Amino acid sequence: MILVGQYDSPFVRRVAISLRVLGLPYEHDTRSVFGDFDAMLKVNPVGRIPSLILDDGEVLVDSAAILDHLDQSVGPERALLPLQGDGRRRALRLMALATGGIEKIGASVYERLVRPSACRWPDWIERCVAQGMGAVAALEAEPWPAEARIDQPRITTACLVRYVKMTSPELMPQGRFPRLDALSSLCEARPEFQATFPADYAVPRSA
Amino acid sequence: MILVGQYDSPFVRRVAISLRVLGLPYEHDTRSVFGDFDAMLKVNPVGRIPSLILDDGEVLVDSAAILDHLDQSVGPERALLPLQGDGRRRALRLMALATGGIEKIGASVYERLVRPSACRWPDWIERCVAQGMGAVAALEAEPWPAEARIDQPRITTACLVRYVKMTSPELMPQGRFPRLDALSSLCEARPEFQATFPADYAVPRSA
Repeated sequence: MILVGQYDSPFVRRVAISLRVLGLPYEHDTRSVFGDFDAMLKVNPVGRIPSLILDDGEVLVDSAAILDHLDQSVGPERALLPLQGDGRRRALRLMALATGGIEKIGASVYERLVRPSACRWPDWIERCVAQGMGAVAALEAEPWPAEARIDQPRITTACLVRYVKMTSPELMPQGRFPRLDALSSLCEARPEFQATFPADYAVPRSA
Repeated sequence: MILVGQYDSPFVRRVAISLRVLGLPYEHDTRSVFGDFDAMLKVNPVGRIPSLILDDGEVLVDSAAILDHLDQSVGPERALLPLQGDGRRRALRLMALATGGIEKIGASVYERLVRPSACRWPDWIERCVAQGMGAVAALEAEPWPAEARIDQPRITTACLVRYVKMTSPELMPQGRFPRLDALSSLCEARPEFQATFPADYAVPRSA
C-alpha cells in the first residue's frame, strides 16, 4: 500500500498512525497538495490528501473511508472503531468533533498563512477559531481514561491536539485543557505517533 | 427526532431525504448558521449543520455520523449503505467524491458571495472549483443505472448536483454531464426530494 500525503496534515497522520497500530506496512508518498497540485489531481480527483493506493491499484480517497476499509480488513476484534451499537455512535460523535475541529482550525490557519494578507478577513478567522475551539472544549469535557485501549477517537483527537499546538500554540497553552494535554502526552509517547511526528511543518506562506 | 438545519445545505438535505426514504418521521428546526450562530453553537459545539436531536435528547452531529446511525437503526436489509465488503468500499468512494465536491464548490460559493468583495482571492476560487469539478467529472464517469435502488451514493450525489446547479449554474449547464443530469432528474422526481427542495435558497451576501 502507498499512503499519499504529508504528516503535517492531521488527516494523513491519523491514517498513518492507524496503519502502524494495526501492523499494516505501507510506503509513503510525500507529494504536496501545494507543490504538486496537478499530480495530486491524478491520484485523487478532488485534489486532497490522504489517498491510499491499494496493492491492486485501487485508490481510496478520504481519510474516513480509508479508516473504514482498514477496520473492515482487520475484523471486528482489532478494529479501531466499534462496528455497531452505542459505542459506535459515541465514537463517531467524538470523531466528528475532532475532525470538525481540525477543519475549522485548519481554515483559520490557511487564512492566516496561505492567503495573501490583503485578502484576509479577520471576522472569518474569528468564526473558524470559535468553531474549532468549541470542538476542543467539548472534547476536553470527555473522560479519556489513561488505561483505555488506543482507538480511533483517541488517535484522531490526539492528531487534532498536536495540529493546534503546532499551528496555533496560543489557542492551547499547556494546562488550559489538562485532559487533552494528558491524552496527547500518552499518545505522542507511542512509537506510531513518534514515527509520524510532523517535525518539518511548513505551510507555504504568502506575503 | 428533530433535524436542525436548512435544506439549502446539501449535508442537511441528504439527511432529510434519507430520513424520508427510511420512513423515519422528524421535526425540522430551520435555524440558520448565519443568523443564529450562538444558538447553533449550543446544539453543536462546532456550530455546524446538520444536527439530529434524538428523542432521548442525545444530539448527533455531522451528516456522515447521522447517516451511519440511521443505517444501524433500520438494519442491514434497509440500510442505504452496504454494511461491509466491496460494495461498502465502492459506495464510500462515491460518497467521498460527492461530499468533497460539495465542500469545494461550497468553499467557492462562500468566497464569491459571503466574503466581503475586498477580501476575495480569485486563485482560491479557481482552485476550489477545479477540485469540486474534479469530483463531478469522476462521478459523471460512473454508470448510475436508472433501475438501481435508491441508496446513499445516489442521494448524496443528487444533492451535490442540485447544489452546484443552484449556486453555480455555469459549472453544470444541462447536457455537459448527461449521466448526472439523468440521475438528478430521476431523484428530484421522488417525493423525498420534492419535499426537501431548497426553493428559497438564500446565502447572506456581502458587498
